[in-house]
Amino acid sequence: METLKVVKISGNIIDNDAELTSFLKEFASLNGPKILVHGGGKLATELSNKMNVPVKMIDGRRVTDAETLEIIMMVYAGKINKNIVAKLQSFGCNSVGFSGADGNTIIAKKRPVSTVDYGFVGDVVKVDIMVSKLLLNNNITNIFSAISHDQKGQLLNTNADTIASELAIAFTEFYQVELYYCFEKNGVLESIDDNDSVIEQINQETYQKLKKSGIINEGMIPKLDNCFYALEKNVSKVCIGKSNMLFDQQSSYTTIQN
Amino acid sequence: METLKVVKISGNIIDNDAELTSFLKEFASLNGPKILVHGGGKLATELSNKMNVPVKMIDGRRVTDAETLEIIMMVYAGKINKNIVAKLQSFGCNSVGFSGADGNTIIAKKRPVSTVDYGFVGDVVKVDIMVSKLLLNNNITNIFSAISHDQKGQLLNTNADTIASELAIAFTEFYQVELYYCFEKNGVLESIDDNDSVIEQINQETYQKLKKSGIINEGMIPKLDNCFYALEKNVSKVCIGKSNMLFDQQSSYTTIQN
Repeated sequence: METLKVVKISGNIIDNDAELTSFLKEFASLNGPKILVHGGGKLATELSNKMNVPVKMIDGRRVTDAETLEIIMMVYAGKINKNIVAKLQSFGCNSVGFSGADGNTIIAKKRPVSTVDYGFVGDVVKVDIMVSKLLLNNNITNIFSAISHDQKGQLLNTNADTIASELAIAFTEFYQVELYYCFEKNGVLESIDDNDSVIEQINQETYQKLKKSGIINEGMIPKLDNCFYALEKNVSKVCIGKSNMLFDQQSSYTTIQN
Repeated sequence: METLKVVKISGNIIDNDAELTSFLKEFASLNGPKILVHGGGKLATELSNKMNVPVKMIDGRRVTDAETLEIIMMVYAGKINKNIVAKLQSFGCNSVGFSGADGNTIIAKKRPVSTVDYGFVGDVVKVDIMVSKLLLNNNITNIFSAISHDQKGQLLNTNADTIASELAIAFTEFYQVELYYCFEKNGVLESIDDNDSVIEQINQETYQKLKKSGIINEGMIPKLDNCFYALEKNVSKVCIGKSNMLFDQQSSYTTIQN
């Protein structure tokens, strides 16, 4: 089977135009079918501040009222997504931008209100890759913003890590899928302040130990749970690190293994 | 040849959520391949005002500095485009939203500075319908926001009427193409204040007379020039009127003929 790369980028690349351009130039030159997934939280917060819309975060997740959802749509699906697509075109990489509503691709359910009301936040219930696959088959790269929809006309703010893993899983039927979570650090670190202390491989057993010892804690736990979930669902490779792990064989990063 | 409908909607539909929903419900049920084109000038102006970005119009065209372009991207390609796609999905019409950068579809050149500097405004130089056609062939409706790109990474604000006519023309190789310009009036009117005074047919000869007599004046001239240009380039039918011309055989509207 052909290899599909699903790459999720985060703020350190998105928020800096020079970083983004340099990343996209290399990304454009990657061989084979590929999907890019992005959010854009910091730029959304900036626009919220400009528009005097209060920003409310709970456990690192954005509470998304109607005004905030509109900001998410504008910043993720408008500004960032189209900027990425236009830059990729300039590097000769034909691409199409998606929200989860486009092609009916990412179907979600508004998160039920429990102790917290997250507002217009969606939990993925189904992925339909028909359109995405059609485009990949025709050598068109897909750029997904972290937005889903409920098939009833409601768009929903959705975690970008989850969108990446759900897309990766959905494509395992047709491709050997590799999932790359790019962030600002070189990988999962033994010592949070030492970027050279990369743990090169983590499996379920070492994961449990690293959690117990507190080396892997709050913010990283949902990310790693996502990784193991993807592996269970037949994604063949999951990596965490700086984006140069995609382009530079010598770079160190963390590989998650079952 | 199969018939393709290219439909451009304007502010009276876009700016009102109930109007938009009711239009999209009917649009979703139209048989055959279809493309929708939208701008969103009034909502862009609203956001500019909220963000204290000055709005400058010359002859009805928006001067587009870098901040205004960002607003255009956010409002057209983010908020409006994704809202339309999500609503169409809810009506069972599978669709994908495009800017002109997506699929490298609408390629433009930044308008040269003459007496006026319009800023990041693009004049269309080439249309590549490869991706758009691939999706139409697979029963996926295309929703275009009025944004083009220069293939060097720059997005450009572009007249929605022009994008509609250029797409219509590009598809004449593969379809019998009908082009519908929907706006707030019943058609081209004999008397501007009488919505019942629709001129049902206009050809080149009557167009010249109507211009001379002043019945067709400033705002309508570029619109009608677009229509005649499309007809010259093999678009088979061009109509102007309220959107119900698409759904109601009894409604009156203006047909432009060569």
